[in-house]
Amino acid sequence: MMQGKASIRFQNPPHILGTGCVAGEKEAQGPLGRWLDQVEQDPMCGQDTWEAAESHLQAQAARLALEHAGCASGDIRYLFAGDLLGQLIATSFGLKSLGIPLFGLYGACSTMGEALGLAAMAVDGGYADKTMALASSHFASAEKQFRFPLAYGNQRPYSATWTVTGCGAVVLGRDGGQVRIAGMTTGKIVDLGVKDSMNMGAAMAPAAADLVMQNLIDFDVTPEYYDQVITGDLGTIGQRALLDLLKEEGVNLEGYHRDCGMEIFDPETQDTHAGGSGCGCSAVALCAWILRELAQGHWRRVLFIPTGALLSQTSFNEGQSIPGIAHGVILERV
Amino acid sequence: MMQGKASIRFQNPPHILGTGCVAGEKEAQGPLGRWLDQVEQDPMCGQDTWEAAESHLQAQAARLALEHAGCASGDIRYLFAGDLLGQLIATSFGLKSLGIPLFGLYGACSTMGEALGLAAMAVDGGYADKTMALASSHFASAEKQFRFPLAYGNQRPYSATWTVTGCGAVVLGRDGGQVRIAGMTTGKIVDLGVKDSMNMGAAMAPAAADLVMQNLIDFDVTPEYYDQVITGDLGTIGQRALLDLLKEEGVNLEGYHRDCGMEIFDPETQDTHAGGSGCGCSAVALCAWILRELAQGHWRRVLFIPTGALLSQTSFNEGQSIPGIAHGVILERV
Repeated sequence: MMQGKASIRFQNPPHILGTGCVAGEKEAQGPLGRWLDQVEQDPMCGQDTWEAAESHLQAQAARLALEHAGCASGDIRYLFAGDLLGQLIATSFGLKSLGIPLFGLYGACSTMGEALGLAAMAVDGGYADKTMALASSHFASAEKQFRFPLAYGNQRPYSATWTVTGCGAVVLGRDGGQVRIAGMTTGKIVDLGVKDSMNMGAAMAPAAADLVMQNLIDFDVTPEYYDQVITGDLGTIGQRALLDLLKEEGVNLEGYHRDCGMEIFDPETQDTHAGGSGCGCSAVALCAWILRELAQGHWRRVLFIPTGALLSQTSFNEGQSIPGIAHGVILERV
Repeated sequence: MMQGKASIRFQNPPHILGTGCVAGEKEAQGPLGRWLDQVEQDPMCGQDTWEAAESHLQAQAARLALEHAGCASGDIRYLFAGDLLGQLIATSFGLKSLGIPLFGLYGACSTMGEALGLAAMAVDGGYADKTMALASSHFASAEKQFRFPLAYGNQRPYSATWTVTGCGAVVLGRDGGQVRIAGMTTGKIVDLGVKDSMNMGAAMAPAAADLVMQNLIDFDVTPEYYDQVITGDLGTIGQRALLDLLKEEGVNLEGYHRDCGMEIFDPETQDTHAGGSGCGCSAVALCAWILRELAQGHWRRVLFIPTGALLSQTSFNEGQSIPGIAHGVILERV
């Protein structure tokens, strides 16, 4: 069942039974907007705080995923979920009413990959009939957590990314649906010493490159094995760094690589600089774009790699570097 | 393999091959002090910041656990780890040099239970030969994260707990060692509306009671099935609440219940009020006390239930309640 050093090929690949994705107005205006399940026009989602708004996104995405999978919360044995906020408060308050046994996860923006991998492991291993994986982010709660008060209106360099306001949720089970999770590669922390929190693509690219290499070695395949290798939120600068790092290893990913952060916004019209980011970026892009393309037969096999920058306001203020991590899952059309 | 609604009885119960526990001077002066593997007399552990000191505790505990299990970091397939700090920075910086594929977890002070459960699942399911579970906390980094600057010297009510400065790490594998993990019960979020962050025992007790009830129902046993039911850090007030809540359900845990937070400090001489708390509390008590008692044959079977209070400084300041969560694992002498 195991393969290589950090990868698993599932014996009974779990299937994706249903998804839910909810996002904000800016995301709705982007290239993937028409495929969102639900759009929240009000950035506060009718709540009193940004954090409560993000919790609302989670509750809505979970509800839609259950609906689309044709099941109730009581049918889900385990929930694997997380967000970017300190102590995962978007998750704690967003999902508590579901009453599902919860594994809280933190992998920064790689959380959807971490959640999908563990949720798939639980189904493949026979520990659960159905599981849910979920991740969210909110532009305003993330700016408050990591950067500046919105009212400052501070300038953002072109290397900065724009945190996606959105949540994606996926229900996994043994049978049904058009896409399955064939395997996973779990990332380790990679830190090349990047300290610029306004260039997180550069901070995460080494971890993404490490994950790609590990995956290719563990499964003994070349990049052509995948129709697409899709990272989470490297953005334009991170993509360039990833492709360069892989070229040094003798791997050419040009033409095979896409990035959720570069797909979710239109850089020409939306002023999002290097692209979208946040746990919600890859989670929403997975539901609104990648799984749809797979289901429609445009792709047969995708290596999906959400990428995370492991910084906090505290570690940044203390002058620490920004380590990266990436978690990969192999998505296949059934 | 599955049993009940939220529990698993493992087919091939993973064994605990080695542990490492490191704590500070105050913990060393407490009742469990003589069984610590390593004591850090300097609360800064020779580092520049409290956060880096906590990372140092993690690195030391992981090193000792590997040493005691007789293996190298390369032998560990997956690492399940977390801490209390925003974005898990103690973990990111403490464990990055190990180079082990990492699942970052956040369950507040229940993290050691969450980590042990998932680490056991990975071994039992055949996904890993060896895994490591680890959790840490540090009094000063936690005070900075959640409460007041230390220099304020603020008064603490008697219901408050004292965050343990320490880290516990456990290596799991298929065979060897004297204690195995027979099963697990995964907690859900329980919120009865407690808002007092200086009384976290009360906030967590409902989740602990829910976990105990779920475990007894899922495994169809009475409390006598266990020699001890040991919670993480309810403290004196949380213990009273737990026993009362269970009595309402017709379950009498008097005489069977212990709490790591009540064991790690001496309330008479150490001025720790309701007891110890933090991820490190149950993790250190597990390694320095519970596993030793099991190995020595004083107990045959323990239900170990780390308990977590899901608050952040932000959610508290915004007037939110403090939801609780608890994760249980069944420890058995081989």
